Amino acid sequence: MTCYRSINHRVDANSLRLYRWYYSRLWQWGLGLTIAVVLMLAFIERPSSFSYTSDPRFRPPPWEPPCGLTEGIEIVCLIIFAIDLTTKSYLIGWDEFRKCKWLIVYILAVSASVIDWTLTLSMFCDQNLRVRRLIRPFFLLQNSSLMKKTLKCIKRTLPEIASVILLLALHLCLFTMIGMLLFAKGEVRSHNGEWETYFRDLPTSLSSLLVLLTTANNPDVMIPAYSLNRGYSIFFILFSGFGTYFLMNLLTAIIYNQFRGYLLMSVQASILRRRLGVRAAFEVMSCQGLQCKSLEHVDKHLNITPFECACFPVSLQQLSDGFIQWEAFRSLFDELDKDRIKVHPPKPEYNSPLLQRLQLVFSHYYVMIVGNAVALANVMCICTILVLDSEKSIAERDDYYMEVINCFFILYYLMEMSLKILAFGWRGYLSYRNNIFDGLLTVCLLLLQITIFATYRLPFPKWLVSSLWSYFSLNKYIL
Amino acid sequence: MTCYRSINHRVDANSLRLYRWYYSRLWQWGLGLTIAVVLMLAFIERPSSFSYTSDPRFRPPPWEPPCGLTEGIEIVCLIIFAIDLTTKSYLIGWDEFRKCKWLIVYILAVSASVIDWTLTLSMFCDQNLRVRRLIRPFFLLQNSSLMKKTLKCIKRTLPEIASVILLLALHLCLFTMIGMLLFAKGEVRSHNGEWETYFRDLPTSLSSLLVLLTTANNPDVMIPAYSLNRGYSIFFILFSGFGTYFLMNLLTAIIYNQFRGYLLMSVQASILRRRLGVRAAFEVMSCQGLQCKSLEHVDKHLNITPFECACFPVSLQQLSDGFIQWEAFRSLFDELDKDRIKVHPPKPEYNSPLLQRLQLVFSHYYVMIVGNAVALANVMCICTILVLDSEKSIAERDDYYMEVINCFFILYYLMEMSLKILAFGWRGYLSYRNNIFDGLLTVCLLLLQITIFATYRLPFPKWLVSSLWSYFSLNKYIL
Repeated sequence: MTCYRSINHRVDANSLRLYRWYYSRLWQWGLGLTIAVVLMLAFIERPSSFSYTSDPRFRPPPWEPPCGLTEGIEIVCLIIFAIDLTTKSYLIGWDEFRKCKWLIVYILAVSASVIDWTLTLSMFCDQNLRVRRLIRPFFLLQNSSLMKKTLKCIKRTLPEIASVILLLALHLCLFTMIGMLLFAKGEVRSHNGEWETYFRDLPTSLSSLLVLLTTANNPDVMIPAYSLNRGYSIFFILFSGFGTYFLMNLLTAIIYNQFRGYLLMSVQASILRRRLGVRAAFEVMSCQGLQCKSLEHVDKHLNITPFECACFPVSLQQLSDGFIQWEAFRSLFDELDKDRIKVHPPKPEYNSPLLQRLQLVFSHYYVMIVGNAVALANVMCICTILVLDSEKSIAERDDYYMEVINCFFILYYLMEMSLKILAFGWRGYLSYRNNIFDGLLTVCLLLLQITIFATYRLPFPKWLVSSLWSYFSLNKYIL
Repeated sequence: MTCYRSINHRVDANSLRLYRWYYSRLWQWGLGLTIAVVLMLAFIERPSSFSYTSDPRFRPPPWEPPCGLTEGIEIVCLIIFAIDLTTKSYLIGWDEFRKCKWLIVYILAVSASVIDWTLTLSMFCDQNLRVRRLIRPFFLLQNSSLMKKTLKCIKRTLPEIASVILLLALHLCLFTMIGMLLFAKGEVRSHNGEWETYFRDLPTSLSSLLVLLTTANNPDVMIPAYSLNRGYSIFFILFSGFGTYFLMNLLTAIIYNQFRGYLLMSVQASILRRRLGVRAAFEVMSCQGLQCKSLEHVDKHLNITPFECACFPVSLQQLSDGFIQWEAFRSLFDELDKDRIKVHPPKPEYNSPLLQRLQLVFSHYYVMIVGNAVALANVMCICTILVLDSEKSIAERDDYYMEVINCFFILYYLMEMSLKILAFGWRGYLSYRNNIFDGLLTVCLLLLQITIFATYRLPFPKWLVSSLWSYFSLNKYIL
């Protein structure tokens, strides 16, 4: 029994309205925000080591929130979870609720959190055993159907990989034993570095080889033995060859295969459910004597954008004698499923021949390539200056050349922007998403540069300006 | 145009005999051995650093082969390659030869090697530029059709991964620039360890981040900046998150997908070619008036084992009126394609009720499980002794308990072996491959133990005995 968004819910008018509200973007975003807040609390709760530096020598004493602040935020979140739980349980009804293990655990989690919360308050925040922090990740799992699917998939993958993991464990055990026998403590006169460092006792040997399986200590673990006799490398080659390159990759391949199969199946099931839903809707409506007029208020209930509305009448023309057939009904919903093709507004028409010539030139594909080349040149300039200035500290750097170059490029970008607006028109320019991005960054850079010139002092760290520059240039190049 | 084993070859009787001989197991193994010898030469050729230790302080002067020894071996190999080349070219004929680039390069490689060889001899082995060593790996590539397929697949994969590699390069370049700006040399009073160690100049920064892409310097590269301010970790998290976990895995997935598709296609093509061959054989034979009698000497030409011969008459019974139909002909070849089911010889029949009872008990599945449990116990014993003795050197170890335990286990294994022989019979015991393996190891261990008892001195290193023991025990457990 899965508890993903199910079709088993109450269907009376009030419940349907509640259902629609519950699955509205607003409520789901609010729930997501609540979960984020609950998980973020760990950063400021006592005992928190959250400070700007991680070096304990320079760390200032952490900020301690007054007793009741984090608890106050938390109880609000818990109340929201309780409301969420009540709504969800009411919507699916008692029969479905009993079958759904996730919801039952959700109740337990919320109640345990509330009990622990009252205990904390009754002890005036002096609690050392913090139980409810362990429960918090469950709220994230419970709310995300992708997480639930991933968990289920992990559960299904475990038996498949168990045999490989057993083989890996046996491989490790066998080689640990052989290694301990091979690199046993030598006589006093011949110093055995391998035994001393990596094969002193069973835990050391096991961990040496376990780390070797990840190739993290790859040549180091071999060197003392290898310098005694090259033949010892055979042991490590055999171990890595079978363990790292065969068994570990087998593990990866099995997991890859399992997840791929499961996610494919889940998408197929989702499409099947959708088809079934459309069929059921048709059956219900045809029982009630469906006429094409009743379809006309469908668009009020579906969230149909103006663009989709435009294609709706085309499909409705397929109706014959006022009754809609199953084929037409299905193709109507297929139509709604399709990706919307974005239509850009038409280019403005100019009367002047000069403007027409300019429009023709600057709406050409090659202009984009020239723009990319200029952006690449910009990156090159920044790189060159970086290489030349790398030995100087920020205060020592002479930014004269840098700023001249920046001005040149900003002028170019501004010109490109205005010519594009001329060529595509204001609305046409904004209908391309990367144009919006370019334009925003250009305006940002212009404002920054003006601030620099006006005050002769930089209010921001200089690297921020340069990073923005390089980010902008590279992004132009990639897009 | 591929040069795998092709169906375009001469078909007159002499050429066919030559063809059969050329693709016989003997010649192909001989060719493989020659290639191995040519590649192995590098270990003893001047200047070789091949010695038992890799430590240059203790390394003895390497053995220098007399001039002419390695050259003598090499020219024999080259002559064999020349014969191989001539035979192959003769077999496929001039028209096919011209189309096959691999063979043309093969000619060039052999001639270049021979020319370089004469130069070496004329200089009395005092040559510093060793051209033909570079050519040797080609002989391996040329001879292996799997290698050729892999090469072809790599060639097809390169354009697919080029875009990801370009993206990776841009990612690296962008983050290097931002990193250099972020960790610029600070003022004198605030010491900036990050700049000093990892972001001093462009090559250093680039290599720091390139190594970070493989996670090899993972926390180290971040620590100086992280101890200044935790916020700097965002830079490294973004870099690793996109570069290592997204782009690098994308690269792996693309390569995996490409190779998977290509190898699948290659297997399909191979099956198709086989089907086509069977059909062509049928057409040719039916033109010549195929009768079922002509099939009876087919088995002389195909390498048919006695077992396959046994199932041959069954298929021949499908013949109607002396002529074979296409369906029956095809199913006949399908029959030959099938994996052979190994039939074990029947168990011996005993008259004595005691022996019958013993046979019943020791041919049971549970006996194998008990055997595995005993082998596991053996491994446990060795582990325990290893842990107890790990601090002692080999000379200090008291092997009394070890040998008592070994004797016990050897007696058990001997008993198990003889009872299995009793239960399955001599031929039945040998028909299981893991029984052969078990038996051989048991006999080896017995002989070793007898040697130890007879001489009270161990002629082999002790770890060899123990490794054999543990290897044996674990193998019993796995099989």
